[in-house]
Amino acid sequence: MTSPHLLAPAPPSEESEQYTVGVDFGTLSGRAVVVRVRDGQELAAAVHPYRHGVIDRYLPQGGAPLPPDWALQHPQDWRDVLRRAVPQALAAAGIDPAAVIGIATDFTACTVLPTLADGTPLSETELAGRPHAWPKLWKHHAAQSHADRINELAQARGEKWIARYGGRISAEWQFAKALQVLEEDPLVYESCARWIEAADWIVWQLTGTESRNACTAGYKGIHQDGAYPSEEYLAALNPRFADFARTRLEFPLSALGSRVGSLSTEAAAWTGLRPGIAVAAGNVDAHVTAAAAQAVEDGQLLAIMGTSTCHVVNSPVLADVPGICGVVAGGIVEGTYGYEAGQSAVGDIFAWVLDQGVPPDYLAEAADRGEDLHTLLTRKAAGQPVGGHGLVALDWLNGNRSVLVDHHLSGVIVGLTLATRPEDVYRALLEATAFGTRVIVEALEAGGVPVHEFIVAGGLAKNELLMQIYSDVLRRPVSLAASNQGPALGSAIHAAVAAGAHGDVRTATAAMGRRLPAVYLPDATRAEAYDALFAEYRLLHDHFATGGLLHRLRHIRDTTHTAD
Amino acid sequence: MTSPHLLAPAPPSEESEQYTVGVDFGTLSGRAVVVRVRDGQELAAAVHPYRHGVIDRYLPQGGAPLPPDWALQHPQDWRDVLRRAVPQALAAAGIDPAAVIGIATDFTACTVLPTLADGTPLSETELAGRPHAWPKLWKHHAAQSHADRINELAQARGEKWIARYGGRISAEWQFAKALQVLEEDPLVYESCARWIEAADWIVWQLTGTESRNACTAGYKGIHQDGAYPSEEYLAALNPRFADFARTRLEFPLSALGSRVGSLSTEAAAWTGLRPGIAVAAGNVDAHVTAAAAQAVEDGQLLAIMGTSTCHVVNSPVLADVPGICGVVAGGIVEGTYGYEAGQSAVGDIFAWVLDQGVPPDYLAEAADRGEDLHTLLTRKAAGQPVGGHGLVALDWLNGNRSVLVDHHLSGVIVGLTLATRPEDVYRALLEATAFGTRVIVEALEAGGVPVHEFIVAGGLAKNELLMQIYSDVLRRPVSLAASNQGPALGSAIHAAVAAGAHGDVRTATAAMGRRLPAVYLPDATRAEAYDALFAEYRLLHDHFATGGLLHRLRHIRDTTHTAD
Repeated sequence: MTSPHLLAPAPPSEESEQYTVGVDFGTLSGRAVVVRVRDGQELAAAVHPYRHGVIDRYLPQGGAPLPPDWALQHPQDWRDVLRRAVPQALAAAGIDPAAVIGIATDFTACTVLPTLADGTPLSETELAGRPHAWPKLWKHHAAQSHADRINELAQARGEKWIARYGGRISAEWQFAKALQVLEEDPLVYESCARWIEAADWIVWQLTGTESRNACTAGYKGIHQDGAYPSEEYLAALNPRFADFARTRLEFPLSALGSRVGSLSTEAAAWTGLRPGIAVAAGNVDAHVTAAAAQAVEDGQLLAIMGTSTCHVVNSPVLADVPGICGVVAGGIVEGTYGYEAGQSAVGDIFAWVLDQGVPPDYLAEAADRGEDLHTLLTRKAAGQPVGGHGLVALDWLNGNRSVLVDHHLSGVIVGLTLATRPEDVYRALLEATAFGTRVIVEALEAGGVPVHEFIVAGGLAKNELLMQIYSDVLRRPVSLAASNQGPALGSAIHAAVAAGAHGDVRTATAAMGRRLPAVYLPDATRAEAYDALFAEYRLLHDHFATGGLLHRLRHIRDTTHTAD
Repeated sequence: MTSPHLLAPAPPSEESEQYTVGVDFGTLSGRAVVVRVRDGQELAAAVHPYRHGVIDRYLPQGGAPLPPDWALQHPQDWRDVLRRAVPQALAAAGIDPAAVIGIATDFTACTVLPTLADGTPLSETELAGRPHAWPKLWKHHAAQSHADRINELAQARGEKWIARYGGRISAEWQFAKALQVLEEDPLVYESCARWIEAADWIVWQLTGTESRNACTAGYKGIHQDGAYPSEEYLAALNPRFADFARTRLEFPLSALGSRVGSLSTEAAAWTGLRPGIAVAAGNVDAHVTAAAAQAVEDGQLLAIMGTSTCHVVNSPVLADVPGICGVVAGGIVEGTYGYEAGQSAVGDIFAWVLDQGVPPDYLAEAADRGEDLHTLLTRKAAGQPVGGHGLVALDWLNGNRSVLVDHHLSGVIVGLTLATRPEDVYRALLEATAFGTRVIVEALEAGGVPVHEFIVAGGLAKNELLMQIYSDVLRRPVSLAASNQGPALGSAIHAAVAAGAHGDVRTATAAMGRRLPAVYLPDATRAEAYDALFAEYRLLHDHFATGGLLHRLRHIRDTTHTAD
C-alpha cells in the first residue's frame, strides 16, 4: 500500500551530489522524501498508511472495548514506514542510496509510549493485553482530570514553569498521560522503565541508542531551565509519582539538527540506506516545518494550517505570553526561544459548514460545474464586500487553544437574518479563524515577541480567498511554504545538518528550504473594513472569554446527556 | 381560480336555522366561510387568490419600477373575493342564501388607501399612474424615515399616546404611510379626501356608507382616549400635515361586532346574499381570531403563530407595557383593553434552517420515508433531552417586534461545536421563539396584564414538538383553536352579533367559537430544565438588546452593500 511518486526529474548522475531522507510520521500514515542537500530539491516521496491507523475501539488482539476518548497506535506501523516508504522513495528517486548521507524524522506530539530499558514497547511484551501498555497518540484525551490536577497544583504552588505554557498544560502531554497510567494501571507504570516520545523512540529504532530532543522535552515534557518539575511537586500530585521524571524521562537533551547517532545495521537493512550515516535528533511535525518554509529567523511566524492550526515563531527574548501553548529554549532552532500557539479547529470548522448540508440548488450547481462544495461556497463568498454578510463569529467550535486555553468554549455566530445564506456563514467562519489568528499575533507582540512576517504551510495554503482574508485581517503580507511536503522536507534539512553538509539549521534552511514571499498583500480598503469587524470580534471574544455562559451551556449539555 | 370546499355535511333544511358569512382578506387571497349561527358549525369555505397578488415591482399598467420596500395591492382583487369566494362558499354549503343574516370581514392591517370622498380609490381615478395613489399593503416598508420622525417628535414632545405603543409606532402604520405620500407626492395627498384602512374600505363597498372600526383606528391609527394626535403635533412634523387626522381620518368609531350598515343592492348582487342583511364593523385578521378561538376573556392570551406571531390578550386595566405593539380600548372586544404584541419571525426562522440545506443523507432519509424536511428535522430533534444540543439562540432573524421594538437586531446562535447537527440548530431555534414568547408574557404580567391561559391558532399549532416546547417553556397549559379557518370564523361570529343573533361578542364566542383546552401540559422536569436555559436566553437577550454590536454589524452590512 506504499505509494511512491517522483517529484522531480532524476538529476544527472554526479559523484559529488548528496542527498538526505526526511520521514514524517503523521496520524494515519508516514511519508518519506528524498532531498538533494545542495538546494533542497525534492526528488521523490512515498507514503505508507499505518495498518492499524488510530486504535480507539479495540486493541488489535481484541478484548474489552477501549473507554471513550482513548487513542492508541501500534509501534510496528511506525517501523513499517521505515521498511516500506523509505526504500520506495529511494527507488522512485532513482539515485544511488550510497549518496544519502543522513536521515531525520519528525512525529506527531505528544505521542508517547512506555518501554523497557532497551526501548522495547511494553505493548510488545507480555503486557500487550493491557491498554495502558500501548503508545498513546497525541489525541488521546482521557487524561483531562489528571491535567486539571497538574494545573491546579502548579498554580497553587506557584510553579514557575506553568507560565511558560500560557498558564495551563494540556491533557495531551507527557505528564498527564503518565499520571493516568500510574493511577489506572500501576502494573504497567511499574514495568515502564522509560516514558518516551514516539519522536525519540523512532530515532532509537534507527540508531539503537536512546536520545531525547529539546523540542518535545520542552513543549510536551515540561522541561524548563534545565529541569523537569521537582520531586516535591510530583509527590504532591501522587507520592508514587515523585520520581517519575528522574527515573523515566531524565536524559541529556539533544539540540534539533544535531547528530544523535548513526544508522544501525538493522535499520540500514530496513531502509536500504548505508549503515553508519547520520541520524538527527527527533522533532515534531509542526516545528520541523519551519525549516522547510524558511521560517526559522526571529519574528517569522509560521502557521501550519489544516484541520487545526499550529503557530510557531522564534524570538531572542524569553517572555511569558499568556495563552500560548509553550515557549522552549531551542524548541524550533538552537540559540533562540521557540514559541508555539494554536487554534483548535480551522479547516474542521469549514468542513463543519459543509457537513450541515447546502441547499439542493447548490448541489446541482456544484455537480454542473464539477466543483467540490468548498470550491462552490468559496466562489459564492469570494465576491462579497467585507462585512457584506453582516455576521461576526467566534471560531471556538472545538474550543480555544490560544490565547484562552479553554476547550469548553464553543462557537458563536452573531448577526443572522432570514437573508443569511450558507456562503455568508462560510465566509464569516473563514474570517473568524483569521481574527483568532490576529488575537494570537497581537498577544505575541504585546508579550514581547515581535512578528515580522506571516508564513503559511499546510493544506489550507491553497485556498486563495482564505489567504487573502488572512493578509487583509493581519495587515501583513502572507508568504507561503513552497513545498507541500513541509514536515518531511524539514526533516531532510535537519538530516543534512546532522550529517555536517550544512553548518547549522539556519544555513541549511537558507539553502534547502523554500518560501514564496509575500504572495498575498493586504488591500488597504479591505484591511480598514476588517479593522472594524475585528473590533467587534474582539468585543465578542472578550465577552464570551469569561466562559460563564458557554461553560454553563456545556455543563447543561453534558449532564443532560448523562441523565438520559 | 376560486376553490370552494365543503367543511361539514349540509344540515337538514330547517326554516329556523340561520347562517352568517365571514370573509378574511389575507396577503395573497381572500377566504369566505359559511357558518351556522346556533353553534358555529362551519359548512363550507372558498378561497379566491388575488389576481395581482402583492404589487412590488411594477404597477399593473407598467411604468417605472417601484422603489425598494414598496408593497401595493389592487382594490379590484378585494372586490373579486366578494364576487367569487362568497357565492362559491354559499353554493358549496348547499343552504338557501336567504338564511344568511349577516356578513363580516377582516383584513390585513395596516393596509391603507387614499380615496375620494365617496370611497373611490385614487388608484381608480386619473391618478392611477402614480404609485402613491395605490393601496399600501401592511408590509410596505418604505416609510421608515417618516416613522422615525414621528417617534422622535412624539418622544421629544412627551406625547402621551406614544407609551400606548410600547414607546414606538411602526413604519407600517397609517401616519407613517400618509406622511410618506404627503412628502413624496403632494398631488396625490391633496386629492386624497379619505385615508382609510382596507378593513373599513371593504365594509364601505358592502354597505355604500363609510365607517371606521375601533380596532384599526386604535392599533394602526393612533386613536387614543377619544382623539388622534393633535394638530400642533402634526404641524410640527410638517405644516401641511397639521389637518391630516381631522380632514382624512376623523369619523365616529364603531365597536367591533356592531352593525355599521346593511348590505347594499350592488353588494348583494356580487355576493348572492340578500340586500339589507347586517354588515359588521371592519376588523383585523389577528384580533378577530380571538372570537374563533374562544379567547376573548381577560387573561386569555391568543398567539396566532405562522411565519410570524401576533399575540392578543385582554385586560380590564389600562397599563403602559413597555415593548408591546399597542393597547386599545375595545381593540379586541368592547368594554376591555386589548393588548397586542408580536414576534417578527417564527415559522420563517424554521424555514430558514431548511433553506440553508441539510446533509445529503438527510435528504435521502426524508425521501425514503416520504417526509418533508420539517418533519424530518422535528423527528430528529424531538428525542433530545432539554439542553442536550448545548445551544441557545436569539430569535431575532427578522428583528424584534416585542418587547425590544427594534428591527435592526439580528439572530445569534451560541454554543456551536463540531458535533452540532442541523436538528440541534433547528430545535434551538424552536426553543428561542418559545423563550421570546416567554419574555413577552413576563413583560405583560410585570406590566399589570395577567395571562391566565395560552391559546394557539395558526399554521404552527399542528407542530406537536413546538407546542410541547411552548408549554414546557411557559410552564402553562397550551390550548388550541379548534378551527383552522380562524379569522374567517371570527368574522362570521362578529356578523352574528351585528345581526342580533347573539347579544354581544362574548356570548357569540361562547356559542360559536371553539377551542381545545389544555391540549399540551407542561412537564415538570423539562420545565425546570428550560428554566435554566431561559435564564441563559435572558442574559443573552439583555446583553444584545442594547443593540450596539448588532446595530454596528447591520450598519457595516448596509453601508458596505451601498459602497460596492
